[in-house]
Amino acid sequence: MSKGLFITFEGIDGCGKSTQLNLLKEEFTKQGIEFIEVREPGGTRVGEKIRTILLDRKNDSMTRMAELLLFEAARAQITEEVIIPALEKGVNVICDRFYDSTTAYQGYANKMGRDLTDFLNLKATNETYPDITLLLDIDPETACRRRSERGEADRIEALGLAYQEAVREGYLELAKSEERIKVLDADRTPEAIYEEIHNLIWDLIS
Amino acid sequence: MSKGLFITFEGIDGCGKSTQLNLLKEEFTKQGIEFIEVREPGGTRVGEKIRTILLDRKNDSMTRMAELLLFEAARAQITEEVIIPALEKGVNVICDRFYDSTTAYQGYANKMGRDLTDFLNLKATNETYPDITLLLDIDPETACRRRSERGEADRIEALGLAYQEAVREGYLELAKSEERIKVLDADRTPEAIYEEIHNLIWDLIS
Repeated sequence: MSKGLFITFEGIDGCGKSTQLNLLKEEFTKQGIEFIEVREPGGTRVGEKIRTILLDRKNDSMTRMAELLLFEAARAQITEEVIIPALEKGVNVICDRFYDSTTAYQGYANKMGRDLTDFLNLKATNETYPDITLLLDIDPETACRRRSERGEADRIEALGLAYQEAVREGYLELAKSEERIKVLDADRTPEAIYEEIHNLIWDLIS
Repeated sequence: MSKGLFITFEGIDGCGKSTQLNLLKEEFTKQGIEFIEVREPGGTRVGEKIRTILLDRKNDSMTRMAELLLFEAARAQITEEVIIPALEKGVNVICDRFYDSTTAYQGYANKMGRDLTDFLNLKATNETYPDITLLLDIDPETACRRRSERGEADRIEALGLAYQEAVREGYLELAKSEERIKVLDADRTPEAIYEEIHNLIWDLIS
C-alpha cells in the first residue's frame, strides 16, 4: 500500500483557497478517492481550543512569540494525531494552511525570522513535508474586496493591506526555494484556477 | 533605580512550593518590599486559557510536543507582558514555576531533550534569567502523601511516582550546571526551610 498524498493550500486571506479546496474535495469524492480534510490551526480537540485563543480579537495583547508557539502547538497535535496516521493508511490529506503559513505570516510579515520558523516547523511536524503546496497568489486589494464581501474580518484579517502584502511577499520568497510549492495566479475564474490544480494533482496520483 | 529581583520556585508537585512562596510574600508585605506574584502556566489572559487546556484531563490525547509548545507560549506571553515590565520598574517578581519546570518535566521526564527545551526556554523568555531559583527537593513518596491530603490530582499529577522521580532527577541534574539554582531539602518543617530561603534572598536584596 502506498502512502497518501499530502496536499496543502496556502495564500493570503481572500485568495480563494476555500473555493479551490472544495472543488478538489468534490472531484475526489466523485472519483471515489479517499481523503480527509484538516484545517490549521485546529482540527483536533486540543487544536480547536488553541484556534479559539488565536482568532479571538479580545486577545490583542498576545505577543508575537506566544502566537507563533500556539500555532506550532496546534500543528504538532494535528500532525501526530491526524495527518501522519492518515498518510500511513494511504489516505490523502488536504490541508487548509500548513506550516508555510507560519513562514509567511510569522517568519516574514511579523519579522520573527525564517531560522526560527523553519526550526519550529520541522520540530512541530517531526519533518512531515507536504507532497504539493498550492499557493494561490493574488494582490491584497483584490483579496480584500473578496473578504469584505464575506462579512467581518477576524483578528488576523484586521491587520490591513500592508500586512497582507508582506505575507504575500513572504510566500513568494519561500516558493523560490521549495520545488513542492506551485504558485498559481488566483486572479482568474475559479474554473481556470481549478483546471491547473487538477492537472498538478493528477500528475502525482496517476 | 535598580532592577527588581526575579525569584522562581521549583520542585515536583507536593514539594511545598506554595507554602514557602506564601511565607516569602508575607515577609515582603510586612517589610514593605514591592513585589508581584505570577504563576506558570497562566498569569495573563492568554496564558490562563492555555493553562486550562494544559491541565484539563479530557485532553489526555495531547502530544508531548504540543504540550511543550503550549507551556512555552504561555511563558512567552507572561514574560513579555508581565515579568520584564515589572523587573524594569524595580518590582520584585516571585514566580511559582518558570522554565526550569519545562527542563525537568518535558526535557528530562518526557525525554524531549535538553537541546530542544533549552532553545525554546531562551526564545520564549527572550533570555530573561531568574536571579535565584529555590528548588524544593523531596522524594516523590513523601510528596505524594502531601498531595493526596490536598484532594484530587490534576492531569500532570496523575502520572505517577516513577514520573515524579524522573522529574526530580531532571531538576537535580539541571541544578549541577546552574549556580542560581539552590537545592533545598524540603523534608523539613516549613519554618526550617523558610529560614534558609530568607537568608538566601536577603543576601541578594541587602
